[in-house]
Amino acid sequence: MQAVELIRKKRDGGVLSTEEIDWFIAGYTRGEIPDYQVASWLMAVCWRGMDARETRDLTLAMVHSGAQLRINEVVAPVIDKHSTGGVGDKVTLAVAPLAAACGISVGKMSGRGLGHTGGTIDKLESIQGFRSELTSDEFVRVLESEGLVLAGQSAELAPADGKMYALRNVTGTVESIPLIAASIMSKKLAIGCSHLLLDVKFGGGAFMKTVERARELAQTMVDIGRLAGMHTVAALTSMEQPLGRAVGNALEMAEAIAILRGEGPEDVSELCYHEVAELLLMTGVVSTQEVAQERVREAVRNGAGVAKLAAVIAAQGGDPRQIEEPELLPRAPYRAILNAPRDGYISAIDAEAIGLASMHLGAGRFKKGDPIDHSTGLVLQAKVGDHLRSGEPLVEVHARDHAEAEALFAALLACYQWSDDSVTTGPLIHEIIHP
Amino acid sequence: MQAVELIRKKRDGGVLSTEEIDWFIAGYTRGEIPDYQVASWLMAVCWRGMDARETRDLTLAMVHSGAQLRINEVVAPVIDKHSTGGVGDKVTLAVAPLAAACGISVGKMSGRGLGHTGGTIDKLESIQGFRSELTSDEFVRVLESEGLVLAGQSAELAPADGKMYALRNVTGTVESIPLIAASIMSKKLAIGCSHLLLDVKFGGGAFMKTVERARELAQTMVDIGRLAGMHTVAALTSMEQPLGRAVGNALEMAEAIAILRGEGPEDVSELCYHEVAELLLMTGVVSTQEVAQERVREAVRNGAGVAKLAAVIAAQGGDPRQIEEPELLPRAPYRAILNAPRDGYISAIDAEAIGLASMHLGAGRFKKGDPIDHSTGLVLQAKVGDHLRSGEPLVEVHARDHAEAEALFAALLACYQWSDDSVTTGPLIHEIIHP
Repeated sequence: MQAVELIRKKRDGGVLSTEEIDWFIAGYTRGEIPDYQVASWLMAVCWRGMDARETRDLTLAMVHSGAQLRINEVVAPVIDKHSTGGVGDKVTLAVAPLAAACGISVGKMSGRGLGHTGGTIDKLESIQGFRSELTSDEFVRVLESEGLVLAGQSAELAPADGKMYALRNVTGTVESIPLIAASIMSKKLAIGCSHLLLDVKFGGGAFMKTVERARELAQTMVDIGRLAGMHTVAALTSMEQPLGRAVGNALEMAEAIAILRGEGPEDVSELCYHEVAELLLMTGVVSTQEVAQERVREAVRNGAGVAKLAAVIAAQGGDPRQIEEPELLPRAPYRAILNAPRDGYISAIDAEAIGLASMHLGAGRFKKGDPIDHSTGLVLQAKVGDHLRSGEPLVEVHARDHAEAEALFAALLACYQWSDDSVTTGPLIHEIIHP
Repeated sequence: MQAVELIRKKRDGGVLSTEEIDWFIAGYTRGEIPDYQVASWLMAVCWRGMDARETRDLTLAMVHSGAQLRINEVVAPVIDKHSTGGVGDKVTLAVAPLAAACGISVGKMSGRGLGHTGGTIDKLESIQGFRSELTSDEFVRVLESEGLVLAGQSAELAPADGKMYALRNVTGTVESIPLIAASIMSKKLAIGCSHLLLDVKFGGGAFMKTVERARELAQTMVDIGRLAGMHTVAALTSMEQPLGRAVGNALEMAEAIAILRGEGPEDVSELCYHEVAELLLMTGVVSTQEVAQERVREAVRNGAGVAKLAAVIAAQGGDPRQIEEPELLPRAPYRAILNAPRDGYISAIDAEAIGLASMHLGAGRFKKGDPIDHSTGLVLQAKVGDHLRSGEPLVEVHARDHAEAEALFAALLACYQWSDDSVTTGPLIHEIIHP
C-alpha cells in the first residue's frame, strides 16, 4: 500500500477500505507516514467527506493507536457526557455529579479550553489542590469509590487523534464533520463507557453555526456509537446567547454549584436536569420520564448532587469547602457594573463576542499553553427577553484591575441588541437524536 | 499574514490576492512555511481551482523565487518550445534545430523523463560526450554562437517549482490544471524567451486523457503567457498511439535525425514541419503559411536542419559524427521481431502500454534517479490504419538480452487492436490556440 495512492483515491471521491484506513492511521502514529501526506489527505477528506463506515473505521483506528481503558469491564453501566462547548457552558460540572448522585457511574475525561472561557478542566482547577491529571489506576479507583471521576484527557488514549488534531489546527482542516466526529468519538471509545450523552450546540456562540450542521455532526457521532457498540444519544441545544449567566472559570464553577442546589438560572438548570433525566432513561435506571425527573429533583432537594461534587473534588485532592461555601472560590480583585444604555427588551446577545471579552479579562486562552486567570469573567445580569430600564445593571465585570474592566465596556455594549417590543426565546433543547 | 488563513480561504473557495500568493510562495521557498501547510493548500487548489489572475501570480511568484536568465535581453526574437510529453515524442529534437536552421534563435531547457522513455535530455545523452548541464553563461554563449542551445533544466531557475513539484508528487496533487500550468510556465518565464510554442498532447498515451482537459491546460498556459508578457501559442495534438515509430532514447534520436533529413515517418514529420512553420509565423520571420512551409522544406532539403543539430551537439561537447552517421548511436545487443498474430487492419495501439513495455527494457525510469539504457526500446513496424498479414513484422524489440525481449511479447501483443475493416485516423494536430 502507498500513502499517495490513498490520498489520490480520496481526492477522486473514492471510498477507503477498512484495511486502508487502518494502515494509514497506524503508519501515521508510528511516524512512517509524514505530516505532509496526512495534511493533503485531510484536505481531501474535507473536500470529499467520508461515509458512515469510513468514519467508524477512522475512529476505531485512532482508538487502536494507543491504550484502551475498557472502563465498562470494571463498572457497568458507566456513562460519559460530552459537550461540543460554548460560552458559559458549565453543564458537565452540574450533570456529572447529579447523575452520579442518582446512581449512575460517570467516568469523564475533559479537555482544556482553547478559546473563550477555558474547558471543564480549567473550571475545576479553580478549586485549590484539585488534581485533574490521573493515572489510569487512579481514574478507575476514584470511579469505583465515588461513582464519579472528573479527569483531564489522557495523552495515552487515542494518541493518533492528538497528533492529527494538532496537524488539522495548522492545515485548515478542522471544519470537517467526519474528522470532528472521529476525533471526539475516538477519545470516548478509548475510555470505553457503556453509554454516552452528547450535547451538540448550534448558534452564534457554537462551533456549528446552524442547526443543520449540528444535526449532521450529532447524527454522525450517534452512528459511530451504534457501529462501535456504545449506546450514544445526542441532544441538539441552542447557543444563540451565553448559557446561564456566568462566563469565566470560578464564576461558572459557582453557577454549577447553584444549579446543583436548585438555585441556578432557570435556562441552564432546566437543561442540566433534563440531561440527567435522559441519562437515567438511556441506562435503564428508570423507565419513565416522570420517574426520572422526580429522581433528579430529589437529588437536588436533598443535596445529594452537591455532596457528590464535594466528595469527588476531595477524592482528587481538591478542597471540598470551596464547593460547600462557593464564596471561598477565587475572586477577582475588581468588579465593575455596566448599566443598560436604554430602556427596552434585550433581543440578542452575541455569545461569541461575550466569550472574546472574557478572554481579554484573562479567563480564556488566545493560544495553547497561555496561563489562565480562574477568578475573572462576566456575570450577565439580564438575558434575551428580559426588559431593563436605562441605568439598570446589564453585566458585572470581574477583572484584575479597574482599567481592564472599563476597557471592555464599549465591546460589551456592542454584544447586545435591543427591541421596544417584547421578545420570546426558543427552548434550549431543540431535539434529541437516538440511535 | 498566516499560512493557515490562506489555506482556509482557498478551502472555502476564495480568491487569493497577488500579495497573499507572493507571501506564501516566498515563505515556502525560504523554508518558513512547512511542507504540511503547503500540502493541504495544494489539495485545496485541486479542489477549488484558481482563476487566471491567481494562476499568473502563482507562476510569477515561482519565477521570482530564483534567478532569471532574461534571455530575450540578449537575443530577440528567441523561442522556446515545450511538449507535455508522450510515448515516442521526439518532436523537440527535430523542431528546435530545424527552427534554428530557418533563422530563429531557440533557447531550450528540458527535463529528464520520469516514466515511459525518458525526456529530451535522456535522448540527447545517447550521444557520446554531450553535456546538458550548462551554466547560465554557457547557455547564453552557445545560444549566441549557434542560434540554438539544448540544456537540462537549471535548478537555479524557479526553485519554488522544483520544491513544490516534488511535494505534489507525493501528496496526490499533481493533477490540477492551474498547478500544472504554473509549473511549466514558471520555468519558461524564468528563461525569458520572447515566444513560446506549446505542444499539449491528449489521448491514451498523454497525461491529459481528453481533448477538453488538454484544451483547458493549453488555454490556461496561453493566458499566463499573455498576462506575463510572453507570446505563447499552443497546439493540441493527438497521442492516441505512439508518435512516429521509434520508442526509446537512441532510437528516437535516430528518428529525429531522419525527420530532419526528410526521411522520417510521415505523421511525426508533418507535425514537426508544421510546428516550425508556426514558429516562423508567430515570430514574424515570415508572414504567410506558404512561405513558412517552403522555408522549412528548404532547410530539410539542403541539410541545414541536420547540420544545425550536429553543430549544437558539438558545441555542447558531443560527437557530431553520431548525428551525421546515426548508425554510430548506441545499439542494443539483441533484436527480436514480433510478428502480426493475424491478418487485418490495426485499429488501435495502446501508447501507455507501449511506453511501459519500453520501461521494462530499461529505456525509462520507474523512479527518479534510476539509471537509463540509451540503446533499448521498440520500433513499431506498422501504425494504426496499416494492414498486415499474419506473420509480417509488427514490432522490432531492441533489448539487452534475448530473455528480456521475449518476456515482453505477450504484453506487446495486448497493446494492439485489430479490425477486418479499414480504419481511418484523425489528424495529429487537432487545433491551435492563439493568445
